[in-house]
Parts: sequence; structure tokens; C-alpha cells
Amino acid sequence: MNKADRIADVRIHPIAFRDPPLLNVAGVHEPWALRSIIEIELENGLVGLGESYGDLVTLADLERVKPALIGLSPFDLNALTRCVYGAVAPHSDPAATFPPAGDKARATAVGAFEVAMLDLQGQILGQPLHQILGGAVRDRVSFSAYLFYKFAQHRDAPDPGDDWGEVLTPEQMVGEARRMVEQYGFGSIKLKGGVFEPERELDALDALRAAFPKHPLRIDPNGGWSVETTRRLMPRLDGLLEYCEDPVNSLAEMGEVARFATMPLATNMCTIAFGHIPETIRLNAVQVILSDHHYWGGLRATQHLAWIGRVFGIGISMHSNSHMGVSLAAMAHVAATIPNLAYACDTHYPWQTDEVIEGGKLPIEGGMVAVPQGPGLGVRLDRDALARLRQNYRDCGIRKRDDATEMRKYDPAFNPARPRF
Amino acid sequence: MNKADRIADVRIHPIAFRDPPLLNVAGVHEPWALRSIIEIELENGLVGLGESYGDLVTLADLERVKPALIGLSPFDLNALTRCVYGAVAPHSDPAATFPPAGDKARATAVGAFEVAMLDLQGQILGQPLHQILGGAVRDRVSFSAYLFYKFAQHRDAPDPGDDWGEVLTPEQMVGEARRMVEQYGFGSIKLKGGVFEPERELDALDALRAAFPKHPLRIDPNGGWSVETTRRLMPRLDGLLEYCEDPVNSLAEMGEVARFATMPLATNMCTIAFGHIPETIRLNAVQVILSDHHYWGGLRATQHLAWIGRVFGIGISMHSNSHMGVSLAAMAHVAATIPNLAYACDTHYPWQTDEVIEGGKLPIEGGMVAVPQGPGLGVRLDRDALARLRQNYRDCGIRKRDDATEMRKYDPAFNPARPRF
Ligand SMILES: [Mg+2]
Ligand SMILES: [Mg+2]
Repeated sequence: MNKADRIADVRIHPIAFRDPPLLNVAGVHEPWALRSIIEIELENGLVGLGESYGDLVTLADLERVKPALIGLSPFDLNALTRCVYGAVAPHSDPAATFPPAGDKARATAVGAFEVAMLDLQGQILGQPLHQILGGAVRDRVSFSAYLFYKFAQHRDAPDPGDDWGEVLTPEQMVGEARRMVEQYGFGSIKLKGGVFEPERELDALDALRAAFPKHPLRIDPNGGWSVETTRRLMPRLDGLLEYCEDPVNSLAEMGEVARFATMPLATNMCTIAFGHIPETIRLNAVQVILSDHHYWGGLRATQHLAWIGRVFGIGISMHSNSHMGVSLAAMAHVAATIPNLAYACDTHYPWQTDEVIEGGKLPIEGGMVAVPQGPGLGVRLDRDALARLRQNYRDCGIRKRDDATEMRKYDPAFNPARPRF
Repeated sequence: MNKADRIADVRIHPIAFRDPPLLNVAGVHEPWALRSIIEIELENGLVGLGESYGDLVTLADLERVKPALIGLSPFDLNALTRCVYGAVAPHSDPAATFPPAGDKARATAVGAFEVAMLDLQGQILGQPLHQILGGAVRDRVSFSAYLFYKFAQHRDAPDPGDDWGEVLTPEQMVGEARRMVEQYGFGSIKLKGGVFEPERELDALDALRAAFPKHPLRIDPNGGWSVETTRRLMPRLDGLLEYCEDPVNSLAEMGEVARFATMPLATNMCTIAFGHIPETIRLNAVQVILSDHHYWGGLRATQHLAWIGRVFGIGISMHSNSHMGVSLAAMAHVAATIPNLAYACDTHYPWQTDEVIEGGKLPIEGGMVAVPQGPGLGVRLDRDALARLRQNYRDCGIRKRDDATEMRKYDPAFNPARPRF
């Protein structure tokens, strides 16, 4: 490894892009979603890309790690881990057992930079990222239609609105689904629940089942239901769902629900770190883990997680927040390498109208994203778009996602405490 | 990836090399140890190396996989897995949960070829193998002195003998240890037990403790003891051992012993495949797993195993059979990348007098092997040595390791049934 292949500069760009007023258990999406775009530049001028959260805590963590990365080889991922552990949690040990309380800050920082380093590895080698990760078992990755209840437009002026309109009834939800499925070809459907009385949301599921008799269906109330509510709903959910995602809000409660549930339980809220795995296994609480390289610690950690799924007979699916094409490319690459990824992945991507990568949004066709075949991630930054999205961040005033405060603009009495139902 | 970087040829060389009459629970080592050396050659002439077992079953499995590898990219490790699953176990599924009964044949074949493919990746990239695996956390890997009871020479003539002499008493064992420690600088000591009445072996351990007051000690009876024997011995073992390796012969019995053992229990016999992990966890039967890329499925699988160790708080050490420098280099590379490898690794290497790699045996200094820094594995075949060791294989007549039959040449009544004690 010569000096030309060492890290010379790291840039962390907070960005903001328009987000529709999507409803969930915590409230409603604000008009702007935050992310960070990470650039790692080598002495030789190659630039690797990453994408992560845009809240102040994550940005501060990433900035803290940054100086230690200068001079590293992009191949030395263990050194990245050491840098993160040294900067984000100075007394922690990269060889120690994962803490049972989880480890999100460190895993998030590793994940943000690891993708950019792997992008560089691929560029150096002239190989797509999935080859660096052991080779693709599929050349297209399936995603699911991610349906939300939503308002027609944000409460705060000026809001240009969006072209999805209001979605609050089963009929409107079927309309949203029809457009999603027609426009993107999605072969499975996920409904973001936890917004209304569960029976009203199950009416929407029934309407979706009638409109899409063969599409696997999921509902994700984000832990908004109690164990007893979930028990009451189970007869109606029976036979309807591919999996039920986070009906309740803790691993212990998931374990209770698992004893009477007639379908697999999935989670991206109760098992979100390697330190949670032993208790997950002990309770037999979860049958599908929604992986997410952003908080599990990167693409290689995602592969470790998927391997653990093969060991314990736990299914692997994939979680998403509002994101840009850098994350979508990373998700597609790692998803392509995981043989036991048996479910269509989640993505908010259809809800985003802006993009930070060259050429605009990556296409979703037949419900699938073609795994990029260029070197590394296979996507590059559109500098003008980046400047615009950075300016959005400066102007929008949002520094931390807060769906509950936003919701109180519509309903001053809104209380996001769970279980809501 | 251009055609020049595709696999053009695969060669599997059965070899045999002299092995001293080392004693263990199963009998005594035969005069020749068998291995296989794997060469994978690309269209561009680059050759990657692997090393595995030399028994007929393994050789047949490797030959069965071979044709499917032609044309693959050495980066496509998932394709290797598919080829192995297609050839060695035609109806198995690379996405399925690992079978609880284990999966040794498939994992062995993947491991044999994966090392050669990773060697090629490193050569293509001009990077040492440990960089391909995520970067080294250490530049030297610690190994332990691996002590055996032994006869002075093999029963069958002609045997040139070896210069270690007979080792059957505590005094002789201390002498063997002194030479091992002086010659190689080992900082920890493992005694292969299960040969004699346990109290006699504990006398040897006591003598070793007296002679090496600060060296961590281990004993490995290879499952030769019963649970009750282990219980009887525990007061004498208490405070003496770094870990007790496979005192008993099944996971269930290890679980029983774990309830009264006062030191960690290690295994390379009870938990030897990913399918065994859930039961290992459930029983809390093992505190240290001895990894071995040859049967766990390669270097990346070894990293998955080590990660699982971090998840469940299980220590990771490393197992060895009689082997050549190709395996030692592979072991050193992967060991260098595992932060939670907290124990000195096992190796039979000091017992081998021959070598198949250029430059002869890799040095062990200060008890450590320097991780090779050349591209890929960093070792190359000595063609003359390979020819000689292949001829040994043809001539020696051994086709499957059988320590028990060999032992009956010395003791016609020998019975390897376990527990022996
Ligand atoms: Mg969710
Ligand atoms: Mg052993």
C-alpha cells in the first residue's frame, strides 16, 4: 500500500431534503429530513462515499472520529473501529463482548465511514462493492412498497405540498398502494401503523388484501400496541401478514407476543445491536431482524448479522429511514451478498423527491433496484445537488428529528407515549 | 473484472510428511501425516494457495467441486459456496439455517478453496491477506507450546526416529517443554492428555507448573474423561489451568462439567460447526471455542465465528492439526484480524520437519509468527518440495488417519473408546 492510497481528507456534509407529512406512532415527519453525506478522499484523489444520520449527536460523533482517520488505508477497517472506539467511547475495547445495552453511537460511526472505505476499496480494485463483500447472489434487490398514512400537506407555510395527497382512509391507502405498485412494481407491501385505532388500520390491511390478493403484507405499528391489544388483534391478523413488525415496544413484550402470534415477528426497534442478540435468542422473541447497516455498524457487520440469522434460524430483512441514493446503493450492494435475505427490503426512497447523486434517483423497477455494477458503490456525488441540500440544512432550522413536536402543530394534545393503543 | 482474472485451473495435491509418534486418546500418530495442497490458477497465471486435509473423503469432495470453479472470479466467494453446496451436498441450500448436526464436509471444502481465492485477491491487489480481511490488529500472532506424550520412534522400520526422544514421564515432559520454550519462545503451554491415567497427567501438569511458574497451562484429553472423573480431578486442576479443553466428549457433558468447573472450558470437538452454536449457548457449555478455518468454512467464516464470540461472551482460541506453512500463514493472517482472539493459538508446526513452501519453515520467535506482509498469503510453493511430498503420499500407503490401528502395533489390546478414564 503506497502513500497515494492513504486517507488524506474526510468531509462530513449535513444535508436536508423535503419530506412529506408521513404519520407514525411518534407523530408526523417534519418538512425536512436530515442526513449526512460522508466523503473520504485519498492522497491520489479517489473519493469514497457514505451516508448516515444528520442529527447533531451523530454529526458531532463523526467529526470527533474524523482526525484519526487521516493516514489510514481504506482497507484497514479494524483501524476504523479502533478510531471510533477511541473517539466516540474512549474507554471501550474493540475486543470486548458487545454491551447488552447496545452500542448505537459507535456502530453508527463505524457504519458511516466503513461504507466510504469499502467504496474506495472497490474503486482501487475496479470492482463493484458487492464483489469486495464476497460476491452477489442476486443482481437485483427486492424492496417493498412502504405505505404511510399522511396529511395532504405540512402545516407550516410555505409548503409546496406533494402529489400523494391526503391518505387517512382505507380507500385512500389502497390508492397510495396502487400508485406505489404501478410506479415501482413493488411485489410486497408494508403499512406503517401505530397511527390510528388498530381496528381502523386493520380495515386498511383488509382493503389492501382485497386489492392486492397476492402481495405479502406487513404492518409496523412501531411498538404502538400493548401485548393485550396485540392479542385481541391476532385473530384478524392471522393469515393476513408475512410478518408483524414491532407490534410492541420491548424485547420482553415481543417474547410474550411470540408465544401467541401466528406469524413471524420482525423488529428494528427491540433488537438493534449485537448486544441485544443473546436476550433475543433466550426469549425466542423475534423471528425476523430488520438489518440496517447505518446502526448495526456497516456492511460487514450486516453480513455478520445475517450469518447469525443462519445460525439461529432468524430471518433477515432490511430497515430504512428517509435516505438518499448513497444509502440505497450501499443497501443494494450488501443485500446482494446475503443468501438468506428472504424478504423484500424496506425503503423510504419513493417518498424522497430530491437526490444528491449524479444522474438523480436510482430507478426501482419491478420492485427491485439493480445492484450498481460500477467500481465501488457505483454512485457519485452531484456537487450542485450537494450544495443545494447543504443550503437546505442551513436554512431549514431543524437539527434533530422530532415527529412529536411537529404533530402537536396539528393536535396540541398529541402524546407519543407507547403503547398508544 | 476481465477474463485474465478468472479461474483457469485448480490443482489438488495430496501430500504426506513425516510425523513423530505422538500419543493421544485415539492412539498414536502414524509415521506419515496427510494433507492436501490446493492451487488455483487464474488465466493471467497468478496462483493462489490453500491447504486442507489429505484423507480420501476430503480429496474426493475437493475434486468434485473443482470443475465448477473454472471461470469464477476469485472475488466471488458466494459463488464458491454455491459450487460447494452443489457438488458436495447437492440438495442443500446456502441460505438455509445451518443444520444442528453440523456441516463439516461442506465447510471443509469452502475453507480449502476460499483461502486460495483470498490469496489471489491479495495478489491482484498487492495487499497482504489480512488487509483483504479488514486489517490486522496485531503484526505477530502468539502460539502455544503443544506438548505430547510420545514414543522414541515409530514401531515400523524403517523409521529414522526424531530428536525429541521418548516422553512418558513428568520429567521427560518438562524436558520437552524446556526445549519447545527455549527453541520457539512460547509463552503458554498446552499438554495433550487423555493418554494415561489422569492423575499421572496431572503430575506432569504440576511438574510443568513448577518449571514454568508463569506460563498459562492447558490440558486437552480430547474427551477422554468422564464427567465424574473430571469432577474428581477438579480440585487439582483448580487454579492450574488457563482453560480445560474437551475434558469430556459431548456438548451435553460439557454442559454438566461447566456447572462445577472452576476454569473456562474450551472445545474443538463439541462445537465444531455453526449448527452447534445454539445448543452450545443454550447449555452454556463452552467458554472458549477453538476456531479452525479448515473445518469452520474458511477465513471469513472464522471471522463470523469470532464475531459470534463477541456477541455471546465466548472466548476465541485456535485449533491445529499437523500442517504445513500454507495453513500456518492462513492461520496467522486471520488471527491477526480478530480483536477478540485472547489466547495463544495451537499449532503442531514444531513437530513437522518438512515443508512445502519456498524458504522452508516459517520462523516462530518469541512464541509468535510474524504475519506475512507480502501480497496475499505471502508464501509460495517450493515445487521440488511439493514433488517430494507428493511422492511420499504415493509411497506411504496411508490414505486415512488411523491412530488407533497404529497404536495396536504397540498395544494389541488398545481400545480408543471414550471416556477412557
Ligand atoms: Mg420498523
Ligand atoms: Mg483439542
